[in-house]
Amino acid sequence: MHELANVFIDRIVDRALEEDLSSGDVTTEACVDPSVQAVAHAVARTPLIACGAAVFARVWTRLDPQLRVEQHLADGARASRAAALWTVRGRARSILMGERVALNLTQRMCGVATATRLYVDAIPAGCAARITDTRKTTPGLRVLERYAVRTGGGYNHRDNLGAAVLINDNHVVASGGVRQAILRAKQFASHTCKIECEVDTLEQLEEALEAGADIVLLDNMDTDTVIEAIRRTGSRAMLEASGGITLARVRELALAGIHAISVGALTHSTVASDIGLDFEVA
Amino acid sequence: MHELANVFIDRIVDRALEEDLSSGDVTTEACVDPSVQAVAHAVARTPLIACGAAVFARVWTRLDPQLRVEQHLADGARASRAAALWTVRGRARSILMGERVALNLTQRMCGVATATRLYVDAIPAGCAARITDTRKTTPGLRVLERYAVRTGGGYNHRDNLGAAVLINDNHVVASGGVRQAILRAKQFASHTCKIECEVDTLEQLEEALEAGADIVLLDNMDTDTVIEAIRRTGSRAMLEASGGITLARVRELALAGIHAISVGALTHSTVASDIGLDFEVA
Amino acid sequence: MHELANVFIDRIVDRALEEDLSSGDVTTEACVDPSVQAVAHAVARTPLIACGAAVFARVWTRLDPQLRVEQHLADGARASRAAALWTVRGRARSILMGERVALNLTQRMCGVATATRLYVDAIPAGCAARITDTRKTTPGLRVLERYAVRTGGGYNHRDNLGAAVLINDNHVVASGGVRQAILRAKQFASHTCKIECEVDTLEQLEEALEAGADIVLLDNMDTDTVIEAIRRTGSRAMLEASGGITLARVRELALAGIHAISVGALTHSTVASDIGLDFEVA
Amino acid sequence: MHELANVFIDRIVDRALEEDLSSGDVTTEACVDPSVQAVAHAVARTPLIACGAAVFARVWTRLDPQLRVEQHLADGARASRAAALWTVRGRARSILMGERVALNLTQRMCGVATATRLYVDAIPAGCAARITDTRKTTPGLRVLERYAVRTGGGYNHRDNLGAAVLINDNHVVASGGVRQAILRAKQFASHTCKIECEVDTLEQLEEALEAGADIVLLDNMDTDTVIEAIRRTGSRAMLEASGGITLARVRELALAGIHAISVGALTHSTVASDIGLDFEVA
Amino acid sequence: MHELANVFIDRIVDRALEEDLSSGDVTTEACVDPSVQAVAHAVARTPLIACGAAVFARVWTRLDPQLRVEQHLADGARASRAAALWTVRGRARSILMGERVALNLTQRMCGVATATRLYVDAIPAGCAARITDTRKTTPGLRVLERYAVRTGGGYNHRDNLGAAVLINDNHVVASGGVRQAILRAKQFASHTCKIECEVDTLEQLEEALEAGADIVLLDNMDTDTVIEAIRRTGSRAMLEASGGITLARVRELALAGIHAISVGALTHSTVASDIGLDFEVA
Amino acid sequence: MHELANVFIDRIVDRALEEDLSSGDVTTEACVDPSVQAVAHAVARTPLIACGAAVFARVWTRLDPQLRVEQHLADGARASRAAALWTVRGRARSILMGERVALNLTQRMCGVATATRLYVDAIPAGCAARITDTRKTTPGLRVLERYAVRTGGGYNHRDNLGAAVLINDNHVVASGGVRQAILRAKQFASHTCKIECEVDTLEQLEEALEAGADIVLLDNMDTDTVIEAIRRTGSRAMLEASGGITLARVRELALAGIHAISVGALTHSTVASDIGLDFEVA
Repeated sequence: MHELANVFIDRIVDRALEEDLSSGDVTTEACVDPSVQAVAHAVARTPLIACGAAVFARVWTRLDPQLRVEQHLADGARASRAAALWTVRGRARSILMGERVALNLTQRMCGVATATRLYVDAIPAGCAARITDTRKTTPGLRVLERYAVRTGGGYNHRDNLGAAVLINDNHVVASGGVRQAILRAKQFASHTCKIECEVDTLEQLEEALEAGADIVLLDNMDTDTVIEAIRRTGSRAMLEASGGITLARVRELALAGIHAISVGALTHSTVASDIGLDFEVA
Repeated sequence: MHELANVFIDRIVDRALEEDLSSGDVTTEACVDPSVQAVAHAVARTPLIACGAAVFARVWTRLDPQLRVEQHLADGARASRAAALWTVRGRARSILMGERVALNLTQRMCGVATATRLYVDAIPAGCAARITDTRKTTPGLRVLERYAVRTGGGYNHRDNLGAAVLINDNHVVASGGVRQAILRAKQFASHTCKIECEVDTLEQLEEALEAGADIVLLDNMDTDTVIEAIRRTGSRAMLEASGGITLARVRELALAGIHAISVGALTHSTVASDIGLDFEVA
Repeated sequence: MHELANVFIDRIVDRALEEDLSSGDVTTEACVDPSVQAVAHAVARTPLIACGAAVFARVWTRLDPQLRVEQHLADGARASRAAALWTVRGRARSILMGERVALNLTQRMCGVATATRLYVDAIPAGCAARITDTRKTTPGLRVLERYAVRTGGGYNHRDNLGAAVLINDNHVVASGGVRQAILRAKQFASHTCKIECEVDTLEQLEEALEAGADIVLLDNMDTDTVIEAIRRTGSRAMLEASGGITLARVRELALAGIHAISVGALTHSTVASDIGLDFEVA
Repeated sequence: MHELANVFIDRIVDRALEEDLSSGDVTTEACVDPSVQAVAHAVARTPLIACGAAVFARVWTRLDPQLRVEQHLADGARASRAAALWTVRGRARSILMGERVALNLTQRMCGVATATRLYVDAIPAGCAARITDTRKTTPGLRVLERYAVRTGGGYNHRDNLGAAVLINDNHVVASGGVRQAILRAKQFASHTCKIECEVDTLEQLEEALEAGADIVLLDNMDTDTVIEAIRRTGSRAMLEASGGITLARVRELALAGIHAISVGALTHSTVASDIGLDFEVA
Repeated sequence: MHELANVFIDRIVDRALEEDLSSGDVTTEACVDPSVQAVAHAVARTPLIACGAAVFARVWTRLDPQLRVEQHLADGARASRAAALWTVRGRARSILMGERVALNLTQRMCGVATATRLYVDAIPAGCAARITDTRKTTPGLRVLERYAVRTGGGYNHRDNLGAAVLINDNHVVASGGVRQAILRAKQFASHTCKIECEVDTLEQLEEALEAGADIVLLDNMDTDTVIEAIRRTGSRAMLEASGGITLARVRELALAGIHAISVGALTHSTVASDIGLDFEVA
Repeated sequence: MHELANVFIDRIVDRALEEDLSSGDVTTEACVDPSVQAVAHAVARTPLIACGAAVFARVWTRLDPQLRVEQHLADGARASRAAALWTVRGRARSILMGERVALNLTQRMCGVATATRLYVDAIPAGCAARITDTRKTTPGLRVLERYAVRTGGGYNHRDNLGAAVLINDNHVVASGGVRQAILRAKQFASHTCKIECEVDTLEQLEEALEAGADIVLLDNMDTDTVIEAIRRTGSRAMLEASGGITLARVRELALAGIHAISVGALTHSTVASDIGLDFEVA
């Protein structure tokens, strides 16, 4: 079970509630008596990976501490079409006021988890390859999206620019070559930081390995070149592939023995999962 | 030209910079001398609608007030493949540190604008139909996404729950029917608020019109039913269609004379536009 | 019953507590033992409309979650002189520390509600006229003041500059006339926005009606002119009067058949209601 | 010249802009071309004390750094009817978008300064009495209102509960008497804090003086009793009067030799000064 | 018992949790099953003054409202080596995630309280001298450090630049002398503010006393000069010593009859108390 | 040159200014005419490592954008006694108002840098050992203190709980042993995270090496045991020593060939550097 502390959810939830409710909810105030009680079930309209129970709950309790929330599926579980994910009970007004915010957040989280699971499931049994996210997350929601990736069976890449070294082509240019960049990074960075270096060619790979990179990122290489890179590298470093990753290629790369496959699309172009909120007056 | 005031961009940009840079950028500090100057061009890798020049600029100037930013295409302009959108010049370190945040934000904005333009272009010449967004926006980024929709030729729906009345099926249930809901809303809401009511059937439409709705939202109706609804309504109210909107249906609905077509997918499942940052040491 | 969600109250209450208590309360710490328990009743010193029970409660529970608060009168109820509004019980220290903040907020809210009720009561029975607020609210407290207006029997005008179109004389000048301004607004604004236009003369009124304004704001017109405006307008638009509104004129305008009367003074020059906090050691 | 640092204004101004503009300004975007330039003069519609030039300027520059602001009258100067206070020049759109926020803030500040000046002017020449504010300020705006009081010729009372000791009747009850309260305060409080004690009777005054209060607050005493209190006190302590303060009583109390007269109404029931923004397309 | 309201602790605790946990706790998530329960005792590794129970508790409950915290020693009590201060029970994961933040805050608070107690204990019995802090506190933590000083038996100096007048040598220069500075301050400052003036010589002391300073700060004077200053001053003002304060000098100055001794080192160079968190799986 | 972006400094500086100045600066307003210009030099009163030029500058420009700041020594340079570090020029009032905040921040930063330099200088020439910080930083100031460590020639350890795995004794207990803990971490953590494990004995070291730890933290081992650990480990992992680190032991450990020595005292018990602000009226 992965952690997602309320102290970080609150900031996101409060901002989202403010966006949607700072002028009140004129429709609900007009149409619904304050005494009406209701129950609403969040239901998967398509198969998906459940994700975001704590966020769902937090939206309602920030809005109205009297609401009661129930979780039917653990984060990471597969929900079939029409499966109930979570239920909220209490004042009808409060439920109607928070509906959009709760769905906007959890549909994205389920969408990320579901997409991740698709990639993860494309890895043949027995392969050690990992699907990882990137820093191409939605600004402001990184903590939720990284959690969703883990929930979907994926792994996180470095969280931010300070957590590990990742030398890209621009750093190589600015520092005078792969070797110099890696040596500078080893000299500068914390001993707790791994050094990863992006390469475009097998020659650069060789240079990176010799300079002592911990991880080499094979950028946009075709599968044959990746296979050759894996052969040459042996146990000298961990290899990561990125760029042009399709489900078919995930399978090929995993069988070839790649360690990690990073997929920007998990978070930069999320398809929101279709979740409905079935509302009934209690 | 639409407005997007810095005072609202700052909050988003600062949060995004904090997510990515709060532990520093160990790679850039290690590999790039502080005196190195550079120039970087944001370039469309696929055709897209340009959007987010002010956001792009603000990321850099928040990070380093010495950076200079140039805009090559107005927001809303069509960029062909390989077109330069914006350029930033100054310290290489600063440019490398802000790259991901600048792209994460603008790729989403261009993505929303580009998708919107696709829908808008599906409306035949001479039709008055509008493509509008919904409240299914990314939490925290609503102001940017609404701007992107306008930039792409679309229109905004109500910004939040206080800006207009929109009675949905749950409000109808809780208040005892379409008619009662509308009357309660007219009695309660500001005289500056329009009353919109969602209906599923032509009978409900009739009830809504009689009760004096300003706008009726035809939810998930097939095109024939929409045509009949338009015929019956005449000038008594404005009609909006939503649910299951494809480009083909946009055309049909527009030709039928619908006033507005709201499309949640513009913002709930944004495909980030592919924009690269071509970096050169100056 | 109107809504006022804690998530919006907190921001205001926390800021107010910070203003008054960020250096502690040296007097209370010096003079009152921490074990002393007390009860304090908020009592109307003059007749007023009760308003702000949730705010009163929130001040105390933010300061000390052990305090218990009781509400004696619903928001909107008339309190006679010496009536108890709300009671707080618990640690004497906590009560003394929050007293000023609780009163500063609720005296203003009751003041707004009481003033609103005065105007609302000036409308003769059977008239449909509404008293509304304006955007001339106290910066930072708009959400509380709009709630207080509703509590006092009034209605809210648009919450902010994005919620509806209100074309004033400057917009008319800048866009080249009443007609052009309205047409531009209809073309630009969301279909969920009403179009209101301010006019100074009956000629402008005619122009606004022809251009299709939903609401016309009759600015600073004398009662006879308003009567003529109502006659000419018929059901073509809703009419709102503002400027120089006295209680006597409210009656006249209501009898003439005006739809809305907006009164800036409700919030721009609030007279705080006189509420005392009767404190007893328990 | 009193100080009012931008770092404290920003928080207030940003919040106010957010309240009014977070959904954009649909009217201005619709009606005013972005290239239109304008000038707007803030003009006193009634005689007033000018106050808030820095706040006026800050609203505009936060919204649009290109706007240029000019100050015609120093804060604290008397403005006659029709006097221009401040001028802003630049994009018409920006000026129209910030108008309400700029006026909402400065009308209150001028209102406080003007009311303060009225009380200050009631003190006969040669009297040393001071008019002071109280902690009955508008939550969130204390820093602006205290500045406005100084600008109007008044003095500030303690800023918050930690800045000085002020023992009121409740503290007296909770600590077992005036004498005990003062002794506890002297023992507990910082040596940099003055000890002020509120008294209702001349007996309590005597007790407070003997216990060594630095200031005694004569609460709701009639003028004769105040005169007697002043006689008895001599130079043993400073005396402050509060409660039921009218302009006529200010004169009486000042002539009697009181040191300070604190007036809650300066800030708890501010009448906004009438200031118009005369706008012209440039 | 001194007060330390949660509303002020939260801001500090939340910021600290964000610094340490915004990327999650990868070790704890990896190594500890979510169902594991634990208990952890905060134990003094050296003798110290206990301080910060509320902060300790707040860290855990912000992180995980299910955790239960017990306090074994009141703030201000002397803890011997190996004494248990506080205990937290609940999910092992939550305890491990908050450990560093809880200790970073409380070790500093205990450090300040312990250092203060050392100075306070150096005052011989029967002397009225007070040990006070200064404004040389850790930015962002002033409220906690001032509380710790009180907990250690010390007194607070003024909290901020608005709470009292303290004229230093630069103010003297800028205003044209000690006398002028004091007279200006008496004229300008709130009647609730004491006037303190820093002097370097006995001549300046005399000038300050004649001008009516309430407190004179003897800056960096040797003990003999302080004794002479006390003799000359009599009851005309309160005297405070600062600069070069050692424990030995505290004793001398106290015996000489000084009123207050302010010690910047209490907070500008805090030695964190050694507190361990003894963790056991429950 | 290390980076310290304004976007992160601002939050700290604004909070510090708010703590000290939220009630204004009554002394400076009283004693110093607004037109007085001044210059102030920050001068080292003892030898120190300069650190914090950007913070010094930012305090003043946040307070008063007109102030001009000059830097005489690069961050990291050795300042001898009486050396001028930085100079600020402009309005005397602004300089006096910001003095304490500027010094409180920079004295701590110089203190950390100076202490770090002391440890770094204890490493004999030719040794590869690094001095590193820990997470025992001042809550809220971590970014400044980590920068100061780098400035003093030290290295940063992991920034937060998400940046690398560090298995301590509690994690070992909760997961059932060193081996299990390391295997769980390798399975769970990002491939970009190094795995560090704390050990108390040589047996645990062997277990950690076999399980594949990247770094082993030798906790509180005597020098002989560290030497043996280094011999046994060879190139299998990086070794870090912590606990009971004195300058003498730094030398021993460095000569023995340790890779990293982490020193909590650099930041948990910082001695503020003595820096004065020499102020002159211009």
